[in-house]
Amino acid sequence: MSMRYIIIGGDAAGMSAASRIKRNDKHAEVIVYERDAHISYAACGMPYWLGGVVGSDKDLQILTPKIAKEKRGIDVRTHHEVVAIEAAQRHVTVHDLKKGELEDVSFDHLIIATGASAIRPHIPGALAEGVFTLRTLVEGQKIFKFMEENGPRRAAIIGAGYIGLEMAEALRGKNMDVHMVEMAPHIMPNYSPDMVEEVTTHLQENGVNIYLESKLKAIKEQKNGLKLEMEGATTGLIVDMVILATGVKPNSEMAKEAGLKMGKSGAIWTNKRLKTNVDRIWAAGDCAELEHRVLGEGVWIPLAPSANKTGRIAGDNASGGHTIFPGILGTNVVKVFNYTMASTGITEEMVEESEKFPHVTSVVITENDRAGYYPGAEPVKIKLVFDKREKKILGAQMVGKSGVAKRIDVLATAISAGMTADDLAMLDLAYAPPYAPVYDPVNVAGSVAGKVK
Amino acid sequence: MSMRYIIIGGDAAGMSAASRIKRNDKHAEVIVYERDAHISYAACGMPYWLGGVVGSDKDLQILTPKIAKEKRGIDVRTHHEVVAIEAAQRHVTVHDLKKGELEDVSFDHLIIATGASAIRPHIPGALAEGVFTLRTLVEGQKIFKFMEENGPRRAAIIGAGYIGLEMAEALRGKNMDVHMVEMAPHIMPNYSPDMVEEVTTHLQENGVNIYLESKLKAIKEQKNGLKLEMEGATTGLIVDMVILATGVKPNSEMAKEAGLKMGKSGAIWTNKRLKTNVDRIWAAGDCAELEHRVLGEGVWIPLAPSANKTGRIAGDNASGGHTIFPGILGTNVVKVFNYTMASTGITEEMVEESEKFPHVTSVVITENDRAGYYPGAEPVKIKLVFDKREKKILGAQMVGKSGVAKRIDVLATAISAGMTADDLAMLDLAYAPPYAPVYDPVNVAGSVAGKVK
Repeated sequence: MSMRYIIIGGDAAGMSAASRIKRNDKHAEVIVYERDAHISYAACGMPYWLGGVVGSDKDLQILTPKIAKEKRGIDVRTHHEVVAIEAAQRHVTVHDLKKGELEDVSFDHLIIATGASAIRPHIPGALAEGVFTLRTLVEGQKIFKFMEENGPRRAAIIGAGYIGLEMAEALRGKNMDVHMVEMAPHIMPNYSPDMVEEVTTHLQENGVNIYLESKLKAIKEQKNGLKLEMEGATTGLIVDMVILATGVKPNSEMAKEAGLKMGKSGAIWTNKRLKTNVDRIWAAGDCAELEHRVLGEGVWIPLAPSANKTGRIAGDNASGGHTIFPGILGTNVVKVFNYTMASTGITEEMVEESEKFPHVTSVVITENDRAGYYPGAEPVKIKLVFDKREKKILGAQMVGKSGVAKRIDVLATAISAGMTADDLAMLDLAYAPPYAPVYDPVNVAGSVAGKVK
Repeated sequence: MSMRYIIIGGDAAGMSAASRIKRNDKHAEVIVYERDAHISYAACGMPYWLGGVVGSDKDLQILTPKIAKEKRGIDVRTHHEVVAIEAAQRHVTVHDLKKGELEDVSFDHLIIATGASAIRPHIPGALAEGVFTLRTLVEGQKIFKFMEENGPRRAAIIGAGYIGLEMAEALRGKNMDVHMVEMAPHIMPNYSPDMVEEVTTHLQENGVNIYLESKLKAIKEQKNGLKLEMEGATTGLIVDMVILATGVKPNSEMAKEAGLKMGKSGAIWTNKRLKTNVDRIWAAGDCAELEHRVLGEGVWIPLAPSANKTGRIAGDNASGGHTIFPGILGTNVVKVFNYTMASTGITEEMVEESEKFPHVTSVVITENDRAGYYPGAEPVKIKLVFDKREKKILGAQMVGKSGVAKRIDVLATAISAGMTADDLAMLDLAYAPPYAPVYDPVNVAGSVAGKVK
């Protein structure tokens, strides 16, 4: 008898799991239930499509149900929502959204890959026409259609995280007036305040109006547009379109109702093999809590690379493999017009109140990305976070116009290996005038950190 | 009584050592003897200056004797050649090249930083007018002057290593006809044959004529130019100018004559603190043999980053510090028109006959440098060299039009940390569509290597 694997969710984690299971066991019955119309799409590419940099949303679709079936033998059922999990009985209740029918389906192994959803704040007007979130391709398509049909000229973006910044650039690329509203005292709240200054100025120079420490209270539909009422502000902004980029939440309610253990982040608890607390039930991707390599505890940082990796590993382990996920660092990079911001590991702010990290400190250095005399040299600013006594590297943030994206990976690798500041200073990194100074900025950061008493 | 430190050679290693000594001990007497006119210049920048990318040779001069004296208290004596070392008596014989006088000077510590020299092949015509080597700034200035005065239109470059390739691009940038002659069966002989194909074609597309497996026998001065006679070839090339880029040799003869231990490479043997076999005598930079982190033995790979680092460490240890140099990987990167080539660690060819590495194998992968749908995506080809059993990463080569230079550093870091293929596959690397695919090429290389049986 072949085993039946049920996978809830057909995006990065779910389809990675499904593909891996079929590779391990070609006789396995693998059913993927996806409540939306699409599977396996590059969600992170949507701002570039909406901004006209990428030609079509078709470019973002990596896999179709038809190809998944024909090439990989995976039974993908779109417009099917799993509405309940019976963990002990090993079956799920599936709602066929087109037919409106419910069905109970049993499984040998279940992989929960339900992802995360955009948070829509509970304020008046949050559901008004012209107010959008951007997480799924369906949501992206709604924005695209609205822009095509209405030609909005003024947009507000609520939230200055990754999506907010990428959408600001996208909408400026469409020549719209862009207003960015952020509750926190600075953009990119996950970064340290001293690492976002240049980019804040750069956004403003590129025509993005930024409102910090500003909380949206309500959106009012008026004849002349959508009026944003903000706490404290006496007058409101009027725009044609609002993007709510105020964060995401894990889609973990159903797992919780099924009695699965939740992490303290509210995402589904998993062990290093991506198993939940119940045998034969696995979780992967943006619905799962994963271990942070520096913090040594479960965190919820939903990003595409770990969704892909954990999906693959959950699938492998469910189908007889034994693969350990070493954890995440939350490594990220974002393009903001001509600037690049990137970070990995922890910030000082993240562990300010933690007793586990009493000796965390940081240094900030600025060095050219290539030989200073070589045309186009641009400064790279690095904040290196480390333990004052052991000099172990715990995190890094980087900002600059060039040479940032893959340099952060050198630091992510160094942190994964448990390297110290001195180790960094002595790394034998590639040098040629067009690409790096003879002491790479990474070496310099290590060298400066090494001298901190 | 203050200590007297004598440093032979005023370039990267020597000046790094001098500066570090003065930081450790501000009362130290630090004398740097430099036989040439210049100290501390960016030799690697010369092809860009000769090609017109960098405006002036002044841009390449990092430090002058005057500034070294005034800002750092270092006594730099240019046009002074140390001609002998009396190791036991602790003194050196210095030749003042301008006055023609010899002087004996005693030292408490000696740092040998004599660098390396271009090899001028022993063939007829090697010293003819219009035939150049390119290692020192003085040599670069001779080429510059010749080009200014004679306006050569046709050049031959003998040797297709870093300098040869960079000079090919430089001279094509000056609209010269460029002919490149290489003895080995492929360009960049330190790379594996399968990693140089695209770049070979790219050079040809950019108007560089390449002659492989071709050995120069003689250069003949004729009325119509310099005639290159090559082994086997019936007709000779005629050019206006020849660059001999056939390699370098360590300037270690004087140290050898002084009885210091040589490494098997012919460069000066050093320990992990950069001490020679004689107390109080240290060696650093391109004249020194250094430990290779993968091979675990002394090698001679003269590159600027390790010259700077070892100079600093030799100076530190000579003046009371205790710093260990962890060794080199030979990490390098070179720009060849629109391509970048980079490598780190070992190649299979390097250990073909070594009993220490019986299980070395490799995989080659090609992945986009960014999301495939993002404009400008370019393939990156990675050759990953690893131990078949332990899966430990031992080396990597990379080639592509974009996203190569700092990605090699991720691999250099991974090798330094002793990471395995699986570790690479699981690294949490930065992803955003403009900068990387969701599985970075480095992850993919690790993943593919991990599956090799």
